[in-house]
Amino acid sequence: MSENIRLEIKHICKQTGARYGLLHTKHGTVEVPIFMPVGTLANVKTLTPEELKEMGAGIILANTYHLALRPGEDIVQKAGGLHKFMNYDGPILTDSGGFQVFSLAKMRSISEEGVKFRNHLNGDELFFTPENVIEIQEKLGADIIMSFDECVPYPATYDYVKDSVERTLRWAKRGKDAHKNECALFGIVQGGEFEDLRRHCAEELVKMDFEGYSIGGTSIGEPKDVCFKMIDISVPYLPKDKPRYLMGVGSLDYILEGIARGIDMFDCVLPTRIARHGSLFSSTGRINIRRAEYKDDFMPIDENCDCYTCKNYTRAYLRHLYVANEALGQRLMSIHNLRFILKIVEGARIAIQEDRFGDYKDEILRKFGDDRGF
Amino acid sequence: MSENIRLEIKHICKQTGARYGLLHTKHGTVEVPIFMPVGTLANVKTLTPEELKEMGAGIILANTYHLALRPGEDIVQKAGGLHKFMNYDGPILTDSGGFQVFSLAKMRSISEEGVKFRNHLNGDELFFTPENVIEIQEKLGADIIMSFDECVPYPATYDYVKDSVERTLRWAKRGKDAHKNECALFGIVQGGEFEDLRRHCAEELVKMDFEGYSIGGTSIGEPKDVCFKMIDISVPYLPKDKPRYLMGVGSLDYILEGIARGIDMFDCVLPTRIARHGSLFSSTGRINIRRAEYKDDFMPIDENCDCYTCKNYTRAYLRHLYVANEALGQRLMSIHNLRFILKIVEGARIAIQEDRFGDYKDEILRKFGDDRGF
Repeated sequence: MSENIRLEIKHICKQTGARYGLLHTKHGTVEVPIFMPVGTLANVKTLTPEELKEMGAGIILANTYHLALRPGEDIVQKAGGLHKFMNYDGPILTDSGGFQVFSLAKMRSISEEGVKFRNHLNGDELFFTPENVIEIQEKLGADIIMSFDECVPYPATYDYVKDSVERTLRWAKRGKDAHKNECALFGIVQGGEFEDLRRHCAEELVKMDFEGYSIGGTSIGEPKDVCFKMIDISVPYLPKDKPRYLMGVGSLDYILEGIARGIDMFDCVLPTRIARHGSLFSSTGRINIRRAEYKDDFMPIDENCDCYTCKNYTRAYLRHLYVANEALGQRLMSIHNLRFILKIVEGARIAIQEDRFGDYKDEILRKFGDDRGF
Repeated sequence: MSENIRLEIKHICKQTGARYGLLHTKHGTVEVPIFMPVGTLANVKTLTPEELKEMGAGIILANTYHLALRPGEDIVQKAGGLHKFMNYDGPILTDSGGFQVFSLAKMRSISEEGVKFRNHLNGDELFFTPENVIEIQEKLGADIIMSFDECVPYPATYDYVKDSVERTLRWAKRGKDAHKNECALFGIVQGGEFEDLRRHCAEELVKMDFEGYSIGGTSIGEPKDVCFKMIDISVPYLPKDKPRYLMGVGSLDYILEGIARGIDMFDCVLPTRIARHGSLFSSTGRINIRRAEYKDDFMPIDENCDCYTCKNYTRAYLRHLYVANEALGQRLMSIHNLRFILKIVEGARIAIQEDRFGDYKDEILRKFGDDRGF
């Protein structure tokens, strides 16, 4: 099989085992580890592709479930694929819709064939199968696409997860057989918190030879140590020369702990979602811009930040835009939060190459750790 | 008195008498006639200053009434004025709030002293006087500010308008006396549709020697021919060497007819407001982007448009963003509508210099006239 993407590992951090590398795609090369901004409906809310580039975003994610509903994959295909449709010429990744089917859709019923559900917009019945989810994603035409999996809730019993993993594996195989075009297809490792199930799932997926592997079933409400355990019991069974993607995990501590555990790719709506609600990252802790104290605070969000927003606007102005419900505020605050997290991941890439990622992680977590609002 | 702004008339169109010139302000020089995008709350909704510059916007307008409520003129003053607050280094004009007091506020009562009203946000009582409106605007610190006037409803009786004009003149004088700083203060010509009242108002204002003159009481529901008449019976009494601003008038036919009648400056929320509702200017008529026909229409809004949106995005993508209620859609469509109208005014400036503005106006109105949705 010809390669649709290629991971070139350039360095393994001697201190932690974290990986630095280059991920070559048909839409350019990005450095990993990388954080992928989420462009649910073929746009990262309020932002243009130029702004994403300026802030150093290398690859973005779009959601298959949402795009299948609006505008529909056929429209995107007619447009020439997602890149042309949304005018983004960098690499794009789509998820399989599995997560949304389990989190957003209504009246879900799972069978061996697939998942029947009513969509959250108008209640129309839809049926996602391992095959048609690949077909939809191929029409969307991202660089990297995902197998259809069952996103097992947490907590779940061993027996439930065992059955689910077997079905996810059968679905992965069916998706792989249906896969036709030049999108790089990833398999998704499930198995809950059970080591033998994660290992079994990973090993069987690896036998099918995917172009990359995702770790699923995380970021669904499990405690932090369980999430880290899920990574720890999955990664060792994945090939070193293929990219590893931790799905939906994007708060700063999870990203850094994921990198330390050998993960290459992350995505999360967190930075943009909280930005739209006026919650801003800063090197001195989280800022809630609606607070009265920022009314006449003419400092940037973060003096140490190099984003467009911090270079040009004050907290007082952003608070004003937020209070007046002006979309420009959401836009400027999204730019800041994304740049803030992208810059920390940039720092991680440098630290890995200098064999000091463990120190870097500790330093960042000490400065911005979750007790500070991340 | 030292000049805060200076109008340099460079050419009078031999065909129409329309004026082309340079308006020098403390924040740069703009060519007139000019259309001013409206930045009500210290931002042109969804857009950055850089985007405004890229589309050729030379001067923008902000609303005193809205800014006095949020964030309050004291905050803006503490920020160093509107330019610094909103990061816009080009010229800015503020209105006096008179129009909003008469259109938005509740429980209004007019006295010789000023207007008492309850604001539209939280019902708090406020009192605008000819003096404090100048003081508020001076704190905001725009390049050009307006006298406080009574915006007479249409229709109104001769006697009502006569009394109102006298009060507007007394208010203009009081505002002029209160005016202290380097903002250029304009007087506002009222007088409804009555020639002798307009003439009287204009002549008395000119005696007070303002740095520019606005024509008010238009764009408040009067028929088009009445609006044009109001211009016709005001302009002849205004000095040739001072800028003339037709307040709140911004649809294409009004702008062109205003230019033909010797007006230099226009503003209107129309292009941005309708853009946010998916209504787009084009050289083949108005486009309502929500229509199903644009679902798979991969043309730009207007093939002849040089705006960022038309160079990069299709109708199908914009329709998708509109239907999905994505703010990026409002942003891209605002860019287009503003650029469309700014480009037509650019064309007007060239036509004036080439003594063919009458032909240009007729051609534009034939192509995009109001029967085509403008």
